[in-house]
Amino acid sequence: MARIAVVAGDGIGTEVVAQARKVIDAVLPGVTATEYELGASLYNRTGEILPESVQSELAEHDAILLGAIGDPSVPPGVLERGLLLKLRFVFDQYVNLRPARLWPGTSSPLAHVKAGEIDFVVVREGTEGLYAGAGGSLHRDTPAEVATEESLNTRHGVERVIRDAFARAQRRERRKVTLVHKTNVLAHAGSLWARTFEAVRAEFPDVETEYQHVDAMAMFLVTQPQRYDVVVTDNLFGDILTDIAAAVTGGIGLAASGSINPERRFPSTFEPVHGSAPDIAGKGIADPVAAVLSASLLLDHLGHPDESRRVAEAVAVELASRAPGAAVRTEEVGDRLAAHASA
Amino acid sequence: MARIAVVAGDGIGTEVVAQARKVIDAVLPGVTATEYELGASLYNRTGEILPESVQSELAEHDAILLGAIGDPSVPPGVLERGLLLKLRFVFDQYVNLRPARLWPGTSSPLAHVKAGEIDFVVVREGTEGLYAGAGGSLHRDTPAEVATEESLNTRHGVERVIRDAFARAQRRERRKVTLVHKTNVLAHAGSLWARTFEAVRAEFPDVETEYQHVDAMAMFLVTQPQRYDVVVTDNLFGDILTDIAAAVTGGIGLAASGSINPERRFPSTFEPVHGSAPDIAGKGIADPVAAVLSASLLLDHLGHPDESRRVAEAVAVELASRAPGAAVRTEEVGDRLAAHASA
Ligand SMILES: CC(C)[C@H](C(=O)O)[C@@H](O)C(=O)O
Ligand SMILES: CC(C)[C@H](C(=O)O)[C@@H](O)C(=O)O
Repeated sequence: MARIAVVAGDGIGTEVVAQARKVIDAVLPGVTATEYELGASLYNRTGEILPESVQSELAEHDAILLGAIGDPSVPPGVLERGLLLKLRFVFDQYVNLRPARLWPGTSSPLAHVKAGEIDFVVVREGTEGLYAGAGGSLHRDTPAEVATEESLNTRHGVERVIRDAFARAQRRERRKVTLVHKTNVLAHAGSLWARTFEAVRAEFPDVETEYQHVDAMAMFLVTQPQRYDVVVTDNLFGDILTDIAAAVTGGIGLAASGSINPERRFPSTFEPVHGSAPDIAGKGIADPVAAVLSASLLLDHLGHPDESRRVAEAVAVELASRAPGAAVRTEEVGDRLAAHASA
Repeated sequence: MARIAVVAGDGIGTEVVAQARKVIDAVLPGVTATEYELGASLYNRTGEILPESVQSELAEHDAILLGAIGDPSVPPGVLERGLLLKLRFVFDQYVNLRPARLWPGTSSPLAHVKAGEIDFVVVREGTEGLYAGAGGSLHRDTPAEVATEESLNTRHGVERVIRDAFARAQRRERRKVTLVHKTNVLAHAGSLWARTFEAVRAEFPDVETEYQHVDAMAMFLVTQPQRYDVVVTDNLFGDILTDIAAAVTGGIGLAASGSINPERRFPSTFEPVHGSAPDIAGKGIADPVAAVLSASLLLDHLGHPDESRRVAEAVAVELASRAPGAAVRTEEVGDRLAAHASA
């Protein structure tokens, strides 16, 4: 039976993760869950970010369910680099999966898009590019200062994430993959991505393909978000594009993500895209839908596609039945989702 | 009297540039304009992209008015890197200026935003970052291939563009500058940008400031584009953000840009953001508004703020009087704008 590490984290993380667990228990009884304290609370108490012993213990789990990390009391970048990004790198979570869906019953800020019309998934590379941490500076704090950041891209890293995107497209109805890069400016990395895309594409003759520059896709996410099915792109482009995708599908309040090691050699992390929202923490009014959808991704990854689908369907029912703008109670939503999903 | 080099370029470039010239002539009679053939037509005819003799002649002008460059017949990247980006670098056009305005009479794809509510300008760095062309690859076309792209950032380059942004904010009503970067991941370049921003800010105590990560701003451009006044950011972030900005203000059909050397040691380039649109070229139906707004930026840069404003006002009248979705005739729009601006 699956062993899940639970990192509730900070702010509303605790509240929403509790609902995600409730829903997992409802559809897949018997999952073992172990809690780990990581995030701003641990850091502020002990100065630790990801103790080695915790890292080793996490490695023994099948997946990590994460609530939210971060608090204004911690200097920016510390927990992001030391915890969130570190997990992606040490556990080789090279597929950063971000579904973008305009759920029936919800509405987009885009006037021309109707509920149900947006349904794509971004496969963002998670272990390379500008996130490699390869950079430095010279002559700091002098007029001669120079600072660099290097984007590192390997055929190994690019090929495996592109292949994952094609495999996902093959399981979807529209079977289309859009490669997004900036080949007209980033000639070397762009060429590696484009040539690798061509090579992998030959293995998937039934999948339609297209290429778009990142700036063009950023625009099309506003003007024609309906056109996408599976999008594959590099780490930084994926970071930006998925936030636009979340915005046009109603905000990051509903957006789920998985940082996935597809081979399951290491645990994958599943977490809502939203932050810890300290302003509403502890009030029981955070919407747990993004955390629950992350749990749905987790279930699928662990080989429980039916349970995953039932959770997603429960969310669909929940969202379709909400009055526009109505307040939510975290616990009640969790209860309803658990009941729907296990019915 | 000002000497302008005119590069009509490809596709609809010729048609829209003709209207921009018409409007300039109307508000500032006596400007000398010399035409240069550059772009896909020259490249396909002679294989040349930016002949050295042309580059030297361009250097003798006060500004370059550019229509549009590019055609499907030219391999992607060739004209972008060899001409458009090259001009930015050789003429040290470090301020890439991109106003974003939701004009009265036009409408945004965003349901919650009303005409007149969006009015900001992005000051995008134009000569550094990932556009430096510093990168390479090893073991090409083998499983061991690695490709790099390096973002180069200097205190010199960062400081001058940030100072320009503050100076622009000081001349605007809201007096607010938003710095956009990704300091939580790009630690070295991000720190240089953030520290330099702090230092320059001390010179402008009457300007309000804020910082946002690039992914957050990408989202806010959809949810709250009204909040921005002046945005300063690096070359690649600016590329992506300005395309979103164009999308939420009604599309790149209306977006103008300037690649500016503020000291006027070298000519600055002014061009519509839209491309050469080969599909509608030669039909007389391209909207010249973006080209004319670029001419307005040109006039301001050359020290003619009143003429610049009159051109912008003519555009405002034109857009306010258009029936939604009505077709435009390039020549007629140009005639109306010239008449309004010189009235
Ligand atoms: C917190 C930050 C480091 C992270 C990223 O840039 O990947 C976040 O924006 C995300 O998208 O998961
Ligand atoms: C054509 C391309 C090289 C260019 C850029 O990336 O700067 C364009 O997208 C722009 O924004 O001017």
